[in-house]
Amino acid sequence: MTQPGTVRVGPAGAPVRQASLREHNLALVLRQVAAGVDGRPPSRADIAAATGLTRATVSALVDDLIGGRLLTEVEPVPRTGAGRPAQGLVLAGDGPAGLGLEINVDYLAACVMDLTGAVRHREVRRTDLRPVPATDALARLAELAGRAGAAARSQGLHLAGTALAVPGLVTAAGVVRLAPNLGWHDIDVPAILAAGTGALQVENAAGAPTPQAENAAAAPTLQVENEANLAALGELHAGPTGPATFIYISGEIGIGAGIVLHGELFRGARGWSGELGHIPVHPDGIDCRCGGRGCLERYAGQEAILAAAGLTGPPLPADAAIGRLVELAERADPAALGALAAAGTAIGVAVAGVINLLDVDTVLLGGVYAPLARWLAPPVRAEIRRRVLTAAWSPVAVQPARLGADAAVLGAAGSIVRGVLAHPARWLNAPG
Amino acid sequence: MTQPGTVRVGPAGAPVRQASLREHNLALVLRQVAAGVDGRPPSRADIAAATGLTRATVSALVDDLIGGRLLTEVEPVPRTGAGRPAQGLVLAGDGPAGLGLEINVDYLAACVMDLTGAVRHREVRRTDLRPVPATDALARLAELAGRAGAAARSQGLHLAGTALAVPGLVTAAGVVRLAPNLGWHDIDVPAILAAGTGALQVENAAGAPTPQAENAAAAPTLQVENEANLAALGELHAGPTGPATFIYISGEIGIGAGIVLHGELFRGARGWSGELGHIPVHPDGIDCRCGGRGCLERYAGQEAILAAAGLTGPPLPADAAIGRLVELAERADPAALGALAAAGTAIGVAVAGVINLLDVDTVLLGGVYAPLARWLAPPVRAEIRRRVLTAAWSPVAVQPARLGADAAVLGAAGSIVRGVLAHPARWLNAPG
Repeated sequence: MTQPGTVRVGPAGAPVRQASLREHNLALVLRQVAAGVDGRPPSRADIAAATGLTRATVSALVDDLIGGRLLTEVEPVPRTGAGRPAQGLVLAGDGPAGLGLEINVDYLAACVMDLTGAVRHREVRRTDLRPVPATDALARLAELAGRAGAAARSQGLHLAGTALAVPGLVTAAGVVRLAPNLGWHDIDVPAILAAGTGALQVENAAGAPTPQAENAAAAPTLQVENEANLAALGELHAGPTGPATFIYISGEIGIGAGIVLHGELFRGARGWSGELGHIPVHPDGIDCRCGGRGCLERYAGQEAILAAAGLTGPPLPADAAIGRLVELAERADPAALGALAAAGTAIGVAVAGVINLLDVDTVLLGGVYAPLARWLAPPVRAEIRRRVLTAAWSPVAVQPARLGADAAVLGAAGSIVRGVLAHPARWLNAPG
Repeated sequence: MTQPGTVRVGPAGAPVRQASLREHNLALVLRQVAAGVDGRPPSRADIAAATGLTRATVSALVDDLIGGRLLTEVEPVPRTGAGRPAQGLVLAGDGPAGLGLEINVDYLAACVMDLTGAVRHREVRRTDLRPVPATDALARLAELAGRAGAAARSQGLHLAGTALAVPGLVTAAGVVRLAPNLGWHDIDVPAILAAGTGALQVENAAGAPTPQAENAAAAPTLQVENEANLAALGELHAGPTGPATFIYISGEIGIGAGIVLHGELFRGARGWSGELGHIPVHPDGIDCRCGGRGCLERYAGQEAILAAAGLTGPPLPADAAIGRLVELAERADPAALGALAAAGTAIGVAVAGVINLLDVDTVLLGGVYAPLARWLAPPVRAEIRRRVLTAAWSPVAVQPARLGADAAVLGAAGSIVRGVLAHPARWLNAPG
């Protein structure tokens, strides 16, 4: 007799003949180390006890993971009781790392994250990219990427891959179909970056000639993804206590959303979900760049809020203008409070529709909405109470995102790191 | 070395020691038979060739499936060429069957579907349930269920389970939290049916004392599910050529939606997704029963359309009133055309938001919208063209649902049948 339930088998596909045991168990051991045992680095014996694998099997897997710089041994914690204390295992901080990049309407960003989740390099460059052709914007981004790669190498890290956050609709091949606020249509980001200075390629291949560096070069080097989706992933993994089902709202010049359900990013049929900014909140209202009318973005986008608050005069950089808006709201300036209340109500109308449709129980206000959440959240909550069918017995939490404006670039780097942790065999076994 | 990709292993969980081979392979054989080989019933040899399993293994599995009345042998099709023609295998039409039930605002329905998908019994009873207490409404439903169970038994079928479609929010335990148009709050449907005449229980246990009938009694006898979700499943499986990613809109007195993504029903965080009727389309508009304002239901629900068309006078039954509306629209009656255009525009505004958010590429107009689709679809398409960011290069199909008003009850019965096909071992192995 077989034991039902020991393996989850897909509903369709080939018959079960042989499972990919090693790949599965390498990832299992990594998860045990990442989670720890009783709050301390686990020993090989701890992992064997927790997983049910034999100690010999665990030791062989651990040796492979140490050899591939995914794990490292630490001095044992002295324990009371008999027996020699065993060495503990932790994720390695000197092996593979993820490069996160972000291109947005008014800034560029880069960050390097190691396997432990520590940020080892970060750079943000404020610049209005609306008047800049896509090729030039990407050339500027490649400069940041080049500096990030050099910083990683100088710290002994090897980039396992790069993820780029873009405020638009991205195909599986990394082509930006549409980024309305950047003015991008059908921009083939991987092709442009490959044809440029090659900074993104060089940094992946130019590490020390270890097997790992060559593996990384053999793997796909660049993933392009919607900015709100990566930010939502960043929030999901920002700490152990966060919600696993939520909508993350990215308030920038445009408004995007990342939807996370039971710990998984929901991408929609073609990966183009979450265009919250173009949900109609006043169907007969103001014309929108997208061709529609009364889109949320026209009532609650960063520029709409600043204009309503009377902050359109001098060309303040966006972060300074948001800072100024916070000051005015703290002083109870009527125009500032009115602008924030109107924006919050518009967000609440759109979000109420989202919750009726998707049944999420947490709303995270991200991007420029994070520092404004004190004023935006109350009207959002009021619209939810009023319009969501389940709100009476199933309250919805509305709260600021934890990572603020860095969420997308941190989520991008983190997505590379989590890919290595979830599929360590790809890193260890790639031809090189 | 292991062979990656032969088994899909879940991302978390226990280590792989032993796969549930038999359960997986029983379902695999059933799928091969259901799909056929070159358009004819496959032989055991055909199945062995298609799956890579040995002929001995296939024969043992097939014998078990025939013994459990899941498969049956048919006369071989004469073939040219050498060799004795092998017996073909088809799904059994005399074994397990699914009972589908529906309770809606103005009708009750029941249907019995066998393993081949054939409907073996169907009954619809028109009755306005709004003035009726939930216990009485469920007692009436139990009468239909009792007749359906008797009809199944008289044809030699054994009910493998019952699924009930309800126009409201249902918990995993089958409690209807809220069905606004029925006036139901926290109605424990399984408990009420168990305490009643017992018709639903009796029909499951009173079959011939074969192992299968006792298995069915031991299995969960009743699943309660949102009506639009079951209707969407019915549409998904209504034929081999339908779309696998769509939103099904159930137009009744209320408006629900079932969302299917890549062939899977999307239920939301708590199973309460798809409350399309309460998406705000005019945020400052008409008050709604739900406590909100300007909900879609108030502009495009069945009663709103009939009222706008001037069909509120005599208390016509709903199906007769919809038939009358179709007649008037065919004669180009201005009030009828105006009512349908306004409803279609309101549906289009809500659906445009849904597509921007969820990125689905097909909209199925179901329930009373199916016979009205000729007039509703053009304004829905116009709003999508105008408001959906991706519409320019990725057209969205808007079409009538294929099953019309029967979709939910057919989807309910089909969900039981598909459960047996997906998990035949549960049917074969249950204690009895």
